[in-house]
Parts: sequence; C-alpha cells; structure tokens
Amino acid sequence: MKMIIVGASGTMGKYLTGAFEKEHEVISVNSKDGHIPTDITSPEAIEKMFSQAGPFDALICTAGPSFVGPWKNLNDQSFRKGIEGKLMGQINLVLIGQHYINPGGSFTLITGALTHTPQRGFANAAAANGAVEAFVRAAAIELGRGIRINAVSPTVIEDSPQYFPFFPGEIPTTMKALEYGFRRSIFGAGTGQVIQP
Amino acid sequence: MKMIIVGASGTMGKYLTGAFEKEHEVISVNSKDGHIPTDITSPEAIEKMFSQAGPFDALICTAGPSFVGPWKNLNDQSFRKGIEGKLMGQINLVLIGQHYINPGGSFTLITGALTHTPQRGFANAAAANGAVEAFVRAAAIELGRGIRINAVSPTVIEDSPQYFPFFPGEIPTTMKALEYGFRRSIFGAGTGQVIQP
Repeated sequence: MKMIIVGASGTMGKYLTGAFEKEHEVISVNSKDGHIPTDITSPEAIEKMFSQAGPFDALICTAGPSFVGPWKNLNDQSFRKGIEGKLMGQINLVLIGQHYINPGGSFTLITGALTHTPQRGFANAAAANGAVEAFVRAAAIELGRGIRINAVSPTVIEDSPQYFPFFPGEIPTTMKALEYGFRRSIFGAGTGQVIQP
Repeated sequence: MKMIIVGASGTMGKYLTGAFEKEHEVISVNSKDGHIPTDITSPEAIEKMFSQAGPFDALICTAGPSFVGPWKNLNDQSFRKGIEGKLMGQINLVLIGQHYINPGGSFTLITGALTHTPQRGFANAAAANGAVEAFVRAAAIELGRGIRINAVSPTVIEDSPQYFPFFPGEIPTTMKALEYGFRRSIFGAGTGQVIQP
C-alpha cells in the first residue's frame, strides 16, 4: 500500500512512519525535511505535494497547528492559527487529495479529546477538532469510488509528557493505541468514524 | 433584560424577536435593516456594533452563512463562506462581546443537527457547527464573571419548508420548540451545552 503521512516529523508522525514503513511504501510529508515538503495552510502547496506524490492508497495527517495559550490572548487573529492549520489544512488535504487518491483509498485525519472534554488554553484546537470531526461525517456520505474518511481522536499522547500538566484527569493515549487507531481507519472498512484509540 | 439578536431579519431571528420583545428590550442586529447593522464576517464591524449597543445581558445569534451545494463545488474558496460566516462570525461575537456583556450574561449561538447527522450538500455547515459546538464547551470553562454560553442545535425548521427535501428523515423543529431551546439557554443556568430543541 502506498501511504502519505503528513506531519511525518512530529511525535505522532515519526512513530507512525516507523510503524508503517516496515510493511508499506510511506511518503513522508512535512514542512521541512520529508520526502516532499509542504505547507498545509496553502492549497497551492498541497496541490503541488499531491502531484509530486502521485496516486496513493492512504493519507494520514498528524499535523494540526493551533493556538495554545491563555483565553485572554484569543482573538480573531490568534484563532486563525487553528483555522488555517488544523482545520482548513486538513480539510484541504481531502478536498484536493480526493482527485489523486486511488479507488478504495482512505483519508485519516487527526482530532483529539478536546472536542468533547475541553481544557483551559485549548479552545482553538477544540474548535478545529469539532469542525474536522463533523466534516469527516459529512465527507463520508459524499466521497465516491469507495473512498473512506475517518478521524483519530487521542487525548494527550504518551510521548509528549510536557503536555501532561495541561490535561488533568486524562490518561495519556499510548503510542501503540494511537497506531492501532490509525490501523483501524486505514485497514478497516469503517467510514465517517471518529476513532478514540 | 437587554438582549441582542444577531440575524434578526432571518426566519429564526424574526420569530425570536417577536417572542422576546414582549417581555424584554431587544436590539435587533442584522446585515441590513436592524436597529444596528453589522457584518459578522468583520471583527471591526462587530466591535462597532457592540460599542453602539452598550452593555447587555444576552446575545442570541441565528446568523450562520455557509456554502450549500454539490460536493464537487466545495473547495478552499467556497468553504470559506462557512468559515468566515457561521464559524468565525459567531466565535468573534463571543471573543469581542465578552468585553461588553454584563456579569451573569449569556451567549447563545446557532448550530444544527448536521453536526452529527450529515446531509448531502451541507458539509460546510456541518464543519462550522462542529467547530462552534466544541468552542461553546471550551469557552464555558474560560469565560469569567458568571457569563454562560450555549448553542441551540435544531434540525430543519418548520418555517423553512423549502429546505425539507434536503433533510430526508428529519422531523422539522417547530418554531415554538426552537424558542424554548433559546429560553433554556438564556433563562436557565446551564453552560457549555448544545441544546437540541
């Protein structure tokens, strides 16, 4: 299977690349040093990335920039970080990537527990997650050619302990569980699902 | 109670204005002919509207422009209609309005059943709804001074029969139920809720 992993240089992306490249052809995409660089906030850069990558079977996105910080610093401008990044960035990967993906292929986007379990300082990520999850359900009834779409929604992940203090009450998602969430989306038959690993 | 109704000239806004102005001071706000005109896609216009309206106790928003149409016409550009309108428009009403609202006041935003029950042609509205609902839950733990925030999430409404064919399987929300959904948010004690009227 030919897989594109967007956000391949991040904590999640690195782990998933390591897990999947043993069995599959993985094209790593990130903002700097992947096989193909891209900027998910630019539709033109996304289009260019797909035309370089060529037809593929699965796209995984673990890239989701958003504004994290005190509520008082949240305004139209700071809110745009998550709107252009985690929200439109991921949605544009699908709207553009649907023209490059093979029949029966799958898109798996990243959201997070913040959609339903808010924590202070993360309203921007929460909103982006909520949008992406609703989009996933909507796109699942629109995409043709057997193309599936799901989201994986972890809570704070095991390999990012620096975030633990900001997620009181959340039992971290193990990297193995995260991988298996993506496996369910990519190799399973479900579509329009929000998978909580 | 002094209420601001944004989207007062729409089907929902007119009904709610009629229902609430018997008992309360209602300031109707819309893009054209309300007491105060505004453009919710412009933070500057929102700021100006609030400074004209002065301190208030409740803000109701029923304005939520989004792109409705065939999936094939959905792209970065058309998706922006819902991003700037139903999503950032409503979020900016809160981010800016929090500096004008009285202690103990409430914000009530509009979402819809599409968040969880997609219908063809409405992916943009679904995404905006999902974002606003997650934002409402996140903002509820951040807003100070006893300020509450909720969303009302109807399905297709009784007084918009032209939309019935696009919502197969949905029993329309009556205008009375819609009004009572808003009543629960405005006069109840709940916060961070998505009220399905």
